Amino acid sequence: MAEKLYFDCDYMAGAHPDVLQELIATNLTKRVGYGCDDFTAKARELIRTACSAPDADVHLLVGGTQTNATVIDGVLAHHEGVLTAESGHINVHESGAIEATGHKVLTLPSHDGKVSAEEVDRYIRNFYADDTYEHMVAPGMLYISFPTEYGTVYSLAELEALSSVCHSHNIPLYIDGARLGYGLAAEGGDVTLQDIARLSDVSYIGGTKVGALFGEAVVVTNKRLLRHFFPLVKQHGALLAKGSLLGIQFATLFTNDLYFRIGREAVAKAQRIKQAFINKGYTVEVDSPTNQQFFRLPNEVVDRLLQRASFEMWGPRGATESVVRFVTSWSTTDEEVEELISLL
Amino acid sequence: MAEKLYFDCDYMAGAHPDVLQELIATNLTKRVGYGCDDFTAKARELIRTACSAPDADVHLLVGGTQTNATVIDGVLAHHEGVLTAESGHINVHESGAIEATGHKVLTLPSHDGKVSAEEVDRYIRNFYADDTYEHMVAPGMLYISFPTEYGTVYSLAELEALSSVCHSHNIPLYIDGARLGYGLAAEGGDVTLQDIARLSDVSYIGGTKVGALFGEAVVVTNKRLLRHFFPLVKQHGALLAKGSLLGIQFATLFTNDLYFRIGREAVAKAQRIKQAFINKGYTVEVDSPTNQQFFRLPNEVVDRLLQRASFEMWGPRGATESVVRFVTSWSTTDEEVEELISLL
Amino acid sequence: MAEKLYFDCDYMAGAHPDVLQELIATNLTKRVGYGCDDFTAKARELIRTACSAPDADVHLLVGGTQTNATVIDGVLAHHEGVLTAESGHINVHESGAIEATGHKVLTLPSHDGKVSAEEVDRYIRNFYADDTYEHMVAPGMLYISFPTEYGTVYSLAELEALSSVCHSHNIPLYIDGARLGYGLAAEGGDVTLQDIARLSDVSYIGGTKVGALFGEAVVVTNKRLLRHFFPLVKQHGALLAKGSLLGIQFATLFTNDLYFRIGREAVAKAQRIKQAFINKGYTVEVDSPTNQQFFRLPNEVVDRLLQRASFEMWGPRGATESVVRFVTSWSTTDEEVEELISLL
Amino acid sequence: MAEKLYFDCDYMAGAHPDVLQELIATNLTKRVGYGCDDFTAKARELIRTACSAPDADVHLLVGGTQTNATVIDGVLAHHEGVLTAESGHINVHESGAIEATGHKVLTLPSHDGKVSAEEVDRYIRNFYADDTYEHMVAPGMLYISFPTEYGTVYSLAELEALSSVCHSHNIPLYIDGARLGYGLAAEGGDVTLQDIARLSDVSYIGGTKVGALFGEAVVVTNKRLLRHFFPLVKQHGALLAKGSLLGIQFATLFTNDLYFRIGREAVAKAQRIKQAFINKGYTVEVDSPTNQQFFRLPNEVVDRLLQRASFEMWGPRGATESVVRFVTSWSTTDEEVEELISLL
Repeated sequence: MAEKLYFDCDYMAGAHPDVLQELIATNLTKRVGYGCDDFTAKARELIRTACSAPDADVHLLVGGTQTNATVIDGVLAHHEGVLTAESGHINVHESGAIEATGHKVLTLPSHDGKVSAEEVDRYIRNFYADDTYEHMVAPGMLYISFPTEYGTVYSLAELEALSSVCHSHNIPLYIDGARLGYGLAAEGGDVTLQDIARLSDVSYIGGTKVGALFGEAVVVTNKRLLRHFFPLVKQHGALLAKGSLLGIQFATLFTNDLYFRIGREAVAKAQRIKQAFINKGYTVEVDSPTNQQFFRLPNEVVDRLLQRASFEMWGPRGATESVVRFVTSWSTTDEEVEELISLL
Repeated sequence: MAEKLYFDCDYMAGAHPDVLQELIATNLTKRVGYGCDDFTAKARELIRTACSAPDADVHLLVGGTQTNATVIDGVLAHHEGVLTAESGHINVHESGAIEATGHKVLTLPSHDGKVSAEEVDRYIRNFYADDTYEHMVAPGMLYISFPTEYGTVYSLAELEALSSVCHSHNIPLYIDGARLGYGLAAEGGDVTLQDIARLSDVSYIGGTKVGALFGEAVVVTNKRLLRHFFPLVKQHGALLAKGSLLGIQFATLFTNDLYFRIGREAVAKAQRIKQAFINKGYTVEVDSPTNQQFFRLPNEVVDRLLQRASFEMWGPRGATESVVRFVTSWSTTDEEVEELISLL
Repeated sequence: MAEKLYFDCDYMAGAHPDVLQELIATNLTKRVGYGCDDFTAKARELIRTACSAPDADVHLLVGGTQTNATVIDGVLAHHEGVLTAESGHINVHESGAIEATGHKVLTLPSHDGKVSAEEVDRYIRNFYADDTYEHMVAPGMLYISFPTEYGTVYSLAELEALSSVCHSHNIPLYIDGARLGYGLAAEGGDVTLQDIARLSDVSYIGGTKVGALFGEAVVVTNKRLLRHFFPLVKQHGALLAKGSLLGIQFATLFTNDLYFRIGREAVAKAQRIKQAFINKGYTVEVDSPTNQQFFRLPNEVVDRLLQRASFEMWGPRGATESVVRFVTSWSTTDEEVEELISLL
Repeated sequence: MAEKLYFDCDYMAGAHPDVLQELIATNLTKRVGYGCDDFTAKARELIRTACSAPDADVHLLVGGTQTNATVIDGVLAHHEGVLTAESGHINVHESGAIEATGHKVLTLPSHDGKVSAEEVDRYIRNFYADDTYEHMVAPGMLYISFPTEYGTVYSLAELEALSSVCHSHNIPLYIDGARLGYGLAAEGGDVTLQDIARLSDVSYIGGTKVGALFGEAVVVTNKRLLRHFFPLVKQHGALLAKGSLLGIQFATLFTNDLYFRIGREAVAKAQRIKQAFINKGYTVEVDSPTNQQFFRLPNEVVDRLLQRASFEMWGPRGATESVVRFVTSWSTTDEEVEELISLL
């Protein structure tokens, strides 16, 4: 009997074959450690070019939670916290990694995973309007994810508004791009990688979920920030001895448009799945233009699909219907998509 | 012209005269440092007796935020956070002191400052029902304040329910008693100091706001907790070199019922003020049975009162009416209360 | 029978009578909290004047370990540690309070408690000469105590050299003045309070051991440092609700030269004791010009003295002789000194 | 012209070919995240078997500093520090990662990288014999590296003595095995992997330097420790999304004796190099039986070798001679060794 159809998440296989091929080709080439090698230098240059940010600092770290904790700890002053949507990954699913660095996570309402520029502005104004503000935690930066934890993306206008609000209050904007490749390929989206770099102070380009074995590329465009980042990375346990592995992977991802192709192909597959569910009359729970799709299905449909396919329940199973998530990635094949659709 | 009438808070003067008298009487008596002196030993014994907790550990610290940070950091495991009402002091007004120790503050709805046992129970059940709970911050203890930041108190039945829920989930209950003396004297309240000690795992008896120059007495009834508290107190900068000063003050407060008399007298004055506002037809914002009173007043009344009295605006001034707070303490005189009432 | 003669330490009694008198006189005067009161404003001004540092920021904290942890944490960047003599209080006797803020304590050889400017210079040069320095903890500030834990003091020339070395390497100099009053009165010393303020970037003037019930006055002359100190103090649990108590005490200490008189009188008594031991032929262990004296005595002399006097063993009891410490303070009387001498 | 001969360190290439082969073979196989996959389960079982520790918990992390910080933070209580040789990696080369978790690193004399059981015992006894021990940082665990940073190894008798001393004082023994494979193959060594597991409470088996792309396997034999390790790993940013990559690599390393073969072959090459230097009359700086070799060479020899070979200066270049380090690994070829020897 055939293997199951896996749509649980976007980190279920190894590396994109092109990335793996480069790791194989370079395996026995000797190079220095800690990211001081030529592969990493090349990856940095390719990323700067792709971002149209020739002066940006680029740092390659291993994983997402690690990157968030290191960057946020490095940016904030002691008395500051980080603003995020209530649903933000740093608030929900990082086991308290941000607080473990000594900083409070300050929450804003989540609108399908997004924050509104107006609410950010109001939060900061109200904060400083309170006579006791020095007894409270100051908002020291804004964290957003692109795409969000619900697969949604900000429009360019929304991103410009957020950037503008942050800078009017003199706090940095940080964009978590764990799934950035899929966000940039969002159906109907109008945000480019250059926009991400231009409008944020710091951002990271996710590799783990977009073709690499692992790896996240931090892009620092606001050079006043993170001036002593290397020892901070080491201190956070985020410095890979064989840093070249990150360089090799990111250099491959940013050659021949690979990173963007991976994004486009996976999103196209996800949108085909979404349309198939709509065609069958099922309810779309969150209208996501990226590689994560959320549906509300009758429980008997859930159970039937689970016999062949693997996917996540989104929250607890309901009495008669439940919300489920299907995720595509570079490793999702056309055959898998077609077979899933045929099951509906 | 006479001095203003001060009702801003309950830490506006020095020490209760009886406490000051003991500090004067003992001033030149030599004693060892760090709380190893006889005065402290006596204070501990008096507190144990007052709590009917002969085996409790009693530690004397300097201030409230310091005590909360030291106790919570000492109780929690690395991966745990502390549950509190959204309005809890540790969540709002401690400049991120809890997060600075590495722990997340987990919030529950506030019902006039209180949490409900049912909501605590549901939070914990839902947490462990989530498949990804190990990626989230585990609820490791419950923090409540008695009285709350809004002057309200839990009934004995509510406190028993909270204690029961905590212990059914095997997490400790910690009671912040910064204003405990006023809470125990709450109009219509049915909770005793013995109940506080019996139903909590750790609690603290506030001195700073209830007659002392400063000082908070931590009562640890669950002896499995805080086993190495002394070096932790030192590490948190909470160890007073002249620890005897804390012992002298608490020994005085727990002699001749002084701590409880201070509470009763200040609450009686606050209730007289509350009744006077009600009699004049003003709106009570929070129905507080303790020494903090919150009224919603027309702005012209606020302005008129401010000419003679000093008190806090509770939140921003409204368009036509505003919420204000009046607080009594051991240092509030009958004359001040009468004059305030005469101004209404 | 008479009370024992106490020479254990300089925090064995309450407050200097003049200080206590002011606390009594102001006890019922109402004032706002958290150091925003007039007493504190006055104390700050008196301290600025005494330091000839009209622009310095002055902050009043409660205790020494607390002050060290708050200042050092506030000054250092994440990847930096604090340089100190191996014997420095922050390295030995603060229960790891500095490390608890996330920073390494970097040690230099102790020369009777002092560090040498040359060794500081060499440490920093060697550090940056090491190719792997970004994998190590950068020296981010220098901590010295004045007087040191052994009662010794730096000469003005030594202090100028240390200040010069620090500033040539662009790191701040922080002076822990827990016993500053006694250090400024050192026999043969040539350092003034103005020198301390002028040559350091941050320092603190100890109150706990020099006449106050408690309290340490942080003087920040390098205004680039500790810009958001208030919330940091609160976060460290170092903000006293009745901050006025610190203001009242320091205002008294810096009126009529009291702080300096206390220092001079206690040092004179200590020097009388030292001379008496020398006259009797006993060995001086550390040649201290301040209020702490260290002698190496035959064990039978130790035992005989212990029958009437209380003092500390300095390290473990030896086979035939042991090192002991005698400390004077404002609370040491002439009678006590004479009786001690008569016992020799 | 031929490539240089690289002897700088043991993390200069990718993965051992057998390890890479498994990564290739499994690349497209889908599996769940975070180490809950079958590859990881198999690796755990193989490691338990190799350790003769059927009940041990095995956790796979990414890098060494990360592993040390996570384990040590997880083991220690707040008031405790970690004992180590002055030369220990955690004390020297981890950018303060241990202190960043709030704990002091307590140092013992280094004897070519090793600590002596007697000195550990004396440290702990002296600590508790000091009356002020609660003001100091308690020794809460012992960290040793095997082999040490100088390539030396403990004998079985030495390891048994250290284990015995630790357990007599009720503190855990933690062994950092970043280069464990090379340590177990030490010329003349008598310690087995089973001994490491049996005598320690926690240890880790280094993969990064011994054939893997990255990865360290933590073996917890004392099950009272690290009970909630999963969220702690996540909080420390040490949880790899594609945890299966660690499982695949360690399963390969612990199949067909690969891990041990790698160790033996690299050590044999290092010993050939050492013997060649000795034969030529050069001075061995540290007598290392493992894959790191330290020689004291005339500067003209250093310069001549540097024309063809790459290796590390160990400390600053001397006036006439300097100390250098040569390191072998699984990626060192016989040809490289022979050519290096021919250059001498």
